Amino acid sequence: MKKSVKWKTALVLWGATDLGPPHFSGDLLWRTGFKAPNPFFLVDILEDGVLDFNKSYLLTNPLELERASKEAKADEVVNLDDYKSKTRSALVNFLKKHGVEKVVVPDTFPCELCNALLKSFKVAYAKPPFYPGRAIKTDWEIGEIEKAQRAVENAVRKAIDYLKTCSTTTNNEIIHGLLLKKLLYSKDLRKIIDDELYKQGYLGVDTIVSCGAQAADPHCAGSGPLKAHQPIVMDVFPLSLETHYYADITRTIFRGEPSKELRDMYQEVLFAQEMAMHNIKAGVDGHDIYEAVLVQLESALYPTDLKNRPMEGFIHGVGHGVGIDMHEPPWIGSTKCILQEGNVVTVEPGLYYSQARDHIPVGGIRIEDMVLVTKDGCRNLTNFPKDLDSMIIS
Amino acid sequence: MKKSVKWKTALVLWGATDLGPPHFSGDLLWRTGFKAPNPFFLVDILEDGVLDFNKSYLLTNPLELERASKEAKADEVVNLDDYKSKTRSALVNFLKKHGVEKVVVPDTFPCELCNALLKSFKVAYAKPPFYPGRAIKTDWEIGEIEKAQRAVENAVRKAIDYLKTCSTTTNNEIIHGLLLKKLLYSKDLRKIIDDELYKQGYLGVDTIVSCGAQAADPHCAGSGPLKAHQPIVMDVFPLSLETHYYADITRTIFRGEPSKELRDMYQEVLFAQEMAMHNIKAGVDGHDIYEAVLVQLESALYPTDLKNRPMEGFIHGVGHGVGIDMHEPPWIGSTKCILQEGNVVTVEPGLYYSQARDHIPVGGIRIEDMVLVTKDGCRNLTNFPKDLDSMIIS
Repeated sequence: MKKSVKWKTALVLWGATDLGPPHFSGDLLWRTGFKAPNPFFLVDILEDGVLDFNKSYLLTNPLELERASKEAKADEVVNLDDYKSKTRSALVNFLKKHGVEKVVVPDTFPCELCNALLKSFKVAYAKPPFYPGRAIKTDWEIGEIEKAQRAVENAVRKAIDYLKTCSTTTNNEIIHGLLLKKLLYSKDLRKIIDDELYKQGYLGVDTIVSCGAQAADPHCAGSGPLKAHQPIVMDVFPLSLETHYYADITRTIFRGEPSKELRDMYQEVLFAQEMAMHNIKAGVDGHDIYEAVLVQLESALYPTDLKNRPMEGFIHGVGHGVGIDMHEPPWIGSTKCILQEGNVVTVEPGLYYSQARDHIPVGGIRIEDMVLVTKDGCRNLTNFPKDLDSMIIS
Repeated sequence: MKKSVKWKTALVLWGATDLGPPHFSGDLLWRTGFKAPNPFFLVDILEDGVLDFNKSYLLTNPLELERASKEAKADEVVNLDDYKSKTRSALVNFLKKHGVEKVVVPDTFPCELCNALLKSFKVAYAKPPFYPGRAIKTDWEIGEIEKAQRAVENAVRKAIDYLKTCSTTTNNEIIHGLLLKKLLYSKDLRKIIDDELYKQGYLGVDTIVSCGAQAADPHCAGSGPLKAHQPIVMDVFPLSLETHYYADITRTIFRGEPSKELRDMYQEVLFAQEMAMHNIKAGVDGHDIYEAVLVQLESALYPTDLKNRPMEGFIHGVGHGVGIDMHEPPWIGSTKCILQEGNVVTVEPGLYYSQARDHIPVGGIRIEDMVLVTKDGCRNLTNFPKDLDSMIIS
């Protein structure tokens, strides 16, 4: 986008921006700040091929016109009905009238509409990020993400405090309740976390509280009774119901002393997590950070097997960007991705084994902080202990 | 889909099914019952061109494989990595290996992937509904939607009860607070509604509480102090955080007697709403129901102007389907759409004027019930008063 181009070019986005409707577009919410349940378009026409010198148009149905005019960040709000015709889509008519020759759309743009564009324009598909600037967070955005991280830290603390009030049996059960004693379930801790988040204006989206063998599957939300002396992975990614910014944290805790094998595995994950944080700074390739974690865990005798099923070891990336989307660029994983000053990323190595062997226990351990990438390193946006002793609740 | 077709055909869906991620696909959640933050595919291969005799494959990255095998409704769960190649997408390789010749995708399918399909297959774009059967609700689905409607009725009742505890001033302000008297804001009632919904396991998604002139814009969420004697439109569409089914209700209430003009307008909207409910039954065209409401309101001297800005009068459809999506087929609006037994639809005429004239006051009034379409008419799934006297709180 930096160089002048031959063709008069338009960047075109389509989607809805309310939470809930399908086709939610984080790009569109970031670009326009406008929340709507009905899909609309944002068109940036690059007058001389440079994104900075563009004119932006928000194209919507008449029902959203007045509100968009008042609330949306766009140079002009356009009524799609004014461009309707029997032969072509309103979008095509709008772009033709504005002399556009080339259209850039996200690679997930609706296919039928894209085919209509192909009949009249050169079309290029952009892989995410559609707006590269979105990965560089503003001070306001960092503030929103930090507020969300404070909220989720409070929520996780509540869950840990509650676990302190529980007792355990010789059968490794965790018992709660004042008069009527009952087993503590994943859903009980999830409710404590989600309720606290809601109180603070956040939604816990599919909060993970998974224990023991369940925790060997990193996306298992967890169900059934929690067990003493086993890892309890709490991975919580709250969404601000006001601004739609996320935060993200994972802690692995134990109610009662874990085995030596679990302790050792925890310490190796923690070491790898701190190593990854040490390696993060602007200009570094996320892939290198990922490789270093993989090699480090292998050399600590925690092998990774991505070929057989179920996969074992360190089976996901080190981290991802956080913002209006729960997972967004940049990625710290198996593909090249250069970190930039102002990125907000998670750092979340983990180990997962569904079969015990030698020194390796069954279960999963993941430790996740969220950091701001700086010129010289990173600033941890997380303010919550992660040393093993603090994670053992007795 | 009823007749045998020439080509071996696959229906292909793509999307994520957790609340929050972009590319949420209600079709995919309905079809698979599987919740995942990462997008995946569902492929139905029609062995003899008939949807009922198909084999379904869920294609996912390795991270979701185990969970999908346990939790998803699909005949077979496939690892996308097994079909990866340098030259073609894994989806294309999978479809080729299964002898597919024609692919049907939603018209919103990702464009770049669709272009890859076009190189190897005949491709057809399906307008919603992708699965027509989704509009015919099962007993379980009707139960989920009714539970959500009960929850939202409780929430709206709480807001009305709270309004009863407030007082008004000669300046048409509404005052609340026990010791510290303060103005009642839109956000105060919204919080009462949303908090009650959350307590019951539902999320109020962009709950509307808009008053007076603001209510003339049907999608305005409402802000600032509420006014006595003015219409307060409460439109609430809760989402079940467990099953992702919605409900939908709107009531227009008044704190203190409304003017004669507002009373008259309310009665005409109510008459039109009851007329629309009277006209609903299986086999009827939604467009006819819409036209009848439009004509009725015109003849009651509430004209509709869709050409000038802002639009005025009856400026949206009569209703929409409700299910896993907040708005889904069938539509009762300006286009042809035959209602079927088992549809769950809203019935929500409204009138909106931003300029007063003659007998027409400034503001908006909308009344919305949710009904189940039956062979002979409809069953109202809403259990909440809507007569004007009940809507005036003193």
